[in-house]
Amino acid sequence: MSNASQPTVFSAEQYFRMQPAPATLDQDVAKVRAFVTRQKKDGRPVVLVTSGGTTVPLERNVVRFLDNFSAGTRGATSAEYFLQAGYAVIFMHRQFSLQPFSRHFSHSTNPFLDFLEIGPSNPMSPIEPGSSDDGETVKVLPSMRRELLSVLRQYHAVQRAGTMLTLSFVTVDDYLFMLRAVAQEMEPLGRTAMFYLAAAVSDFFLPTQKMAEHKIQSGKGSLQIEMDQVPKILKPLRDDWASEGFIVSFKLETDPNLLIPKARQALERYDHKLVIGNDLNRRKFEVVFVEKDPTSKSGYQESWVRLPEGKQEIEEEMIKKLVEMHEQYMHGR
Amino acid sequence: MSNASQPTVFSAEQYFRMQPAPATLDQDVAKVRAFVTRQKKDGRPVVLVTSGGTTVPLERNVVRFLDNFSAGTRGATSAEYFLQAGYAVIFMHRQFSLQPFSRHFSHSTNPFLDFLEIGPSNPMSPIEPGSSDDGETVKVLPSMRRELLSVLRQYHAVQRAGTMLTLSFVTVDDYLFMLRAVAQEMEPLGRTAMFYLAAAVSDFFLPTQKMAEHKIQSGKGSLQIEMDQVPKILKPLRDDWASEGFIVSFKLETDPNLLIPKARQALERYDHKLVIGNDLNRRKFEVVFVEKDPTSKSGYQESWVRLPEGKQEIEEEMIKKLVEMHEQYMHGR
Repeated sequence: MSNASQPTVFSAEQYFRMQPAPATLDQDVAKVRAFVTRQKKDGRPVVLVTSGGTTVPLERNVVRFLDNFSAGTRGATSAEYFLQAGYAVIFMHRQFSLQPFSRHFSHSTNPFLDFLEIGPSNPMSPIEPGSSDDGETVKVLPSMRRELLSVLRQYHAVQRAGTMLTLSFVTVDDYLFMLRAVAQEMEPLGRTAMFYLAAAVSDFFLPTQKMAEHKIQSGKGSLQIEMDQVPKILKPLRDDWASEGFIVSFKLETDPNLLIPKARQALERYDHKLVIGNDLNRRKFEVVFVEKDPTSKSGYQESWVRLPEGKQEIEEEMIKKLVEMHEQYMHGR
Repeated sequence: MSNASQPTVFSAEQYFRMQPAPATLDQDVAKVRAFVTRQKKDGRPVVLVTSGGTTVPLERNVVRFLDNFSAGTRGATSAEYFLQAGYAVIFMHRQFSLQPFSRHFSHSTNPFLDFLEIGPSNPMSPIEPGSSDDGETVKVLPSMRRELLSVLRQYHAVQRAGTMLTLSFVTVDDYLFMLRAVAQEMEPLGRTAMFYLAAAVSDFFLPTQKMAEHKIQSGKGSLQIEMDQVPKILKPLRDDWASEGFIVSFKLETDPNLLIPKARQALERYDHKLVIGNDLNRRKFEVVFVEKDPTSKSGYQESWVRLPEGKQEIEEEMIKKLVEMHEQYMHGR
């Protein structure tokens, strides 16, 4: 694996002209518009949470694709805490990645079929006429009742309040077109809009015209793939689509020494509000908030957020801190 | 994207010597051994169902990986029909891909939180002393009761009978090491063992010594990946690990014209029992069973299996046909 010497670098504009827009984009945009209008009327701050990894298909009839590792835990968990803090949430996630509320009952680690039991027929409830069943009921195991009730209460409250809108993407094309459209719809929110970009977005893509139409056949030797760089989307997001929004991006690294330098580099380039740095192996226990700070010698300020003892989810601390920063920003610090 | 002219082709033996075995392999093997021993005593046929796609990590600390498209529908659905037909099932699936029974309630299309409601406290059930809850109960919506009861009954029956063992893999390394080990444990079953290899296994891999340790940095240009061919594992499976087993492999193609030629080629090469060919876009409505047939002019026999009108799942027909073929084989046709 190597990086080639002659990169093709596309601007965001070129990218959007060259690549195909997702088929359902217009429908999604209509939903976002209605949602944003309602929240704005209610005076509620709105956060766009992106979550999960994007794919890069290698074939037009997709069999193989490049993917970025992400179960979507950070985004799904954070969305719950934003909702608790009174935000409306546009949850834009990779299809099949974790979602707020249902994330507590993953099919693999906490399968919901395992906490349901079949109870005897209830003598109080008459069997429907013409029904062939014997009136048996499905019950939740007593040991799971409290946890399930707590999640269900929150989930139903959010549904009643209409404060969450869910959108899904698969490919990096889907993601970029959707991000641009959602940001443009959020523009009227001004400083009350937050962008919490936790999705793991591919740095590389395969332009449509270079893509194989059918499944790449093996048996002809080794496979060589050459991909181009995805344009840096934070730039137009900050400069053109959401110039007043509170933009938070993430840096995931596996080499801890790169974390702060890469975060500073991103702030220098895009001049947005905050980079949250996380090391792949320690991301559930500590993250670092990196901001520009003209009063400090380095020009930057770093503050570590760590999981307090006795707590389960570092996102609770992260969102608390972010909400404070966003409040100061909304009130014109 | 291209295929290079000078392939490095590794044999299965070289591959297993070169690549690292998954850390939990020994534990999994012990479970398989106990499971196979019990089923053999009960005189039950055993089918290994593999399901979902394998990944090829591009970095040692995995951020990026190549993946094969598969939600795991074929495997999870087929496993249910094998269980209904009296088989014991070793369900070896990609982590987070669909599983038998829970597949009916995907978090995305049929989220289970949506069919639960909070009921009033039940005056018949006393509140536990010291409990802070108010005795509310979780109930299943009446509209979902029948479907959920039907799935739960089957799920509980399989759990009571102990006829399903679930194993999971992520990478193509995990998959290949696990397949070899499971096949070797199934060897004592002789002709009563079936191998239903529905997983979408990568044709290419990245040898450990060529892998980057840390996240590949972008910003240096385009990305070039060169991968080697995965050894053809059906060969040693057929010749060495499970020479008496009834081996069924799958061919997925996006070009319909390649389907039968590729299936015949696989039978010619590996001399196993059956190739099930599916076209990516028509795989839920029709598949083709391709077998060797010395009495036919071509040397092969093809029979199409199609979804009957009024039925939901083509797997029901596929498994019915397979069970008949396997019975003939077990009785020494």
